[in-house]
Amino acid sequence: MKPYVLGIDIGGTNTVFGIVDARGVVIASNSIKTQKYHKFEDYLNELYTEAKKIIEANDAVDKIYGIGIGAPNANYYTGMIDTAANLPWETPLALADLVSKKFGIPVAITNDANAAAIGEMTYGAARGLKDFIMITLGTGVGSGIVINGQLVYGHDGYAGELGHLIVKRNNGRLCGCGRTGCLETYCSATGVARTAREFLEARTEASLLRNIPIEDITSKDVYDAAINGDKIAKEIFEYTGKILGEAMADMTVFSSPEAFIIFGGLAKSGELLLKPMREAMEKNMLPIFKGKAKVLLSELKEADAAVLGASALGWEAKTTPIPAATVAPATAVTV
Amino acid sequence: MKPYVLGIDIGGTNTVFGIVDARGVVIASNSIKTQKYHKFEDYLNELYTEAKKIIEANDAVDKIYGIGIGAPNANYYTGMIDTAANLPWETPLALADLVSKKFGIPVAITNDANAAAIGEMTYGAARGLKDFIMITLGTGVGSGIVINGQLVYGHDGYAGELGHLIVKRNNGRLCGCGRTGCLETYCSATGVARTAREFLEARTEASLLRNIPIEDITSKDVYDAAINGDKIAKEIFEYTGKILGEAMADMTVFSSPEAFIIFGGLAKSGELLLKPMREAMEKNMLPIFKGKAKVLLSELKEADAAVLGASALGWEAKTTPIPAATVAPATAVTV
Repeated sequence: MKPYVLGIDIGGTNTVFGIVDARGVVIASNSIKTQKYHKFEDYLNELYTEAKKIIEANDAVDKIYGIGIGAPNANYYTGMIDTAANLPWETPLALADLVSKKFGIPVAITNDANAAAIGEMTYGAARGLKDFIMITLGTGVGSGIVINGQLVYGHDGYAGELGHLIVKRNNGRLCGCGRTGCLETYCSATGVARTAREFLEARTEASLLRNIPIEDITSKDVYDAAINGDKIAKEIFEYTGKILGEAMADMTVFSSPEAFIIFGGLAKSGELLLKPMREAMEKNMLPIFKGKAKVLLSELKEADAAVLGASALGWEAKTTPIPAATVAPATAVTV
Repeated sequence: MKPYVLGIDIGGTNTVFGIVDARGVVIASNSIKTQKYHKFEDYLNELYTEAKKIIEANDAVDKIYGIGIGAPNANYYTGMIDTAANLPWETPLALADLVSKKFGIPVAITNDANAAAIGEMTYGAARGLKDFIMITLGTGVGSGIVINGQLVYGHDGYAGELGHLIVKRNNGRLCGCGRTGCLETYCSATGVARTAREFLEARTEASLLRNIPIEDITSKDVYDAAINGDKIAKEIFEYTGKILGEAMADMTVFSSPEAFIIFGGLAKSGELLLKPMREAMEKNMLPIFKGKAKVLLSELKEADAAVLGASALGWEAKTTPIPAATVAPATAVTV
């Protein structure tokens, strides 16, 4: 069996790619700007050229088992990106097919949160777990659900959008999805900043956060203020953690996971967020599930996580029956 | 392969059992009173005696492939009932093991809603579906979730308690589980009766329901009144359907099912319930899922459904690796 996979994480700003071995060691990695080319063909040419460089430099020609790609709204079943607000290319885009033809290597794709879950299961905190839920707390809230050791894609490939559970049925915040009250409007980095603005406007107490123009406050500012003992900032984390914990209790009645794995920028807030989250989760848990679900932090190094997550899917590129349309025969160009 | 399974549905009042063939035809069935014996051993003796009668009368001796049992809180993984308020026996009870030893046939058990889902997948409306959610609207709200063709048991065997999703975070109704605001306090038969009492107390309009002592109103009374054009009764179904539809939109972001299968007494309300439910589900759906999930009514005949659901699990009794403790070797008594 070929010893490496190529992981490609396509983000709105950067595309990071790396060669990864079976133990999750990133042998080499590099990145290109996602937004540089408006035509996908030009972008793919640069990606291929740059990836080829690290492949050749690391004696990995003909040693790449598969390519795994994490990208916004990428559909595992179809290999397509149907629509993605943050990417510059025309959609629908036959991503898996085009990349596979270019590299001559089988490709599997999924969205970034699912890729993170697979990465965690393959190399990280979820090794050995068959039932867990990965929650990524970044600009938005993403999720990857694993049941019976399998990622949950749903009948259409789009399952696992737990950031869009409705947590406030009335008077909820407007979400990017067009609805109101979604979990991610409260428990993402952006949500924390929104809570800060709401709290500061509704109250008159002094706060370190009042030194920052209110529209510029970020979740990092709230974290810094909380660490410095700021009362309002600490309450913002308690509010955020409580909503997240309540939602996790609801997620548990669905799939009764052995663990939740928390990942992403906000997870770095540590106990400021995790303590109220755990408390609210346990307090709201259906009795039969109380005290069972672990809360674990991701074990993937932040710098490598995106590539590792994507790469882990590369190991599935051959073994999983991807529809024929999405995987080109491994001929064409051999790298 | 042996041509029959024995399905046993253990309810709080009756235990129904039947011989079922591979196409879901109930060859013969009968029932005993669940509450008659306080010792499980005595209950099991009668169950065995009565089941043996129909087995012998139908020339099914040595033709039973497996036994499937649906019972409250029955755990598929352990074969145990750890606790069940509605059953008269001491718990924890090693149900699968004891029944298997008595009959000399492999046994698999699960809770009643999961059994219904397996029944629907094997013989009913979910044939050919790999991703669906069964919702049973009875005294409570039960659910069985199927993903990738597999029932979701979770890490502990208790997953799929969607009746306990919190749909009212504040001022929600007290649930039998000890928490407040659970889906089943609104969308079960009992929930409909509670809504009737709330609506009648809060309002002064005339209603056919005012002819019934308020504590005696049942969901059937509300149905009868609605069918007769009663305004408040129709609004009660709209209220119930809306809450259920909103919850189904939330369930969809989890597993993106191809269909919801609706089953149970309340499902017989038909469009009175289903119309507002579908509308609320679609209105609250994350855009990517809009217009995708079907809502189907169970195709199992009510009289046979419990036995069929339980029996379907019997086909898994040998093929699924049940922990050794729960399945006795097929020796002991041969029927």
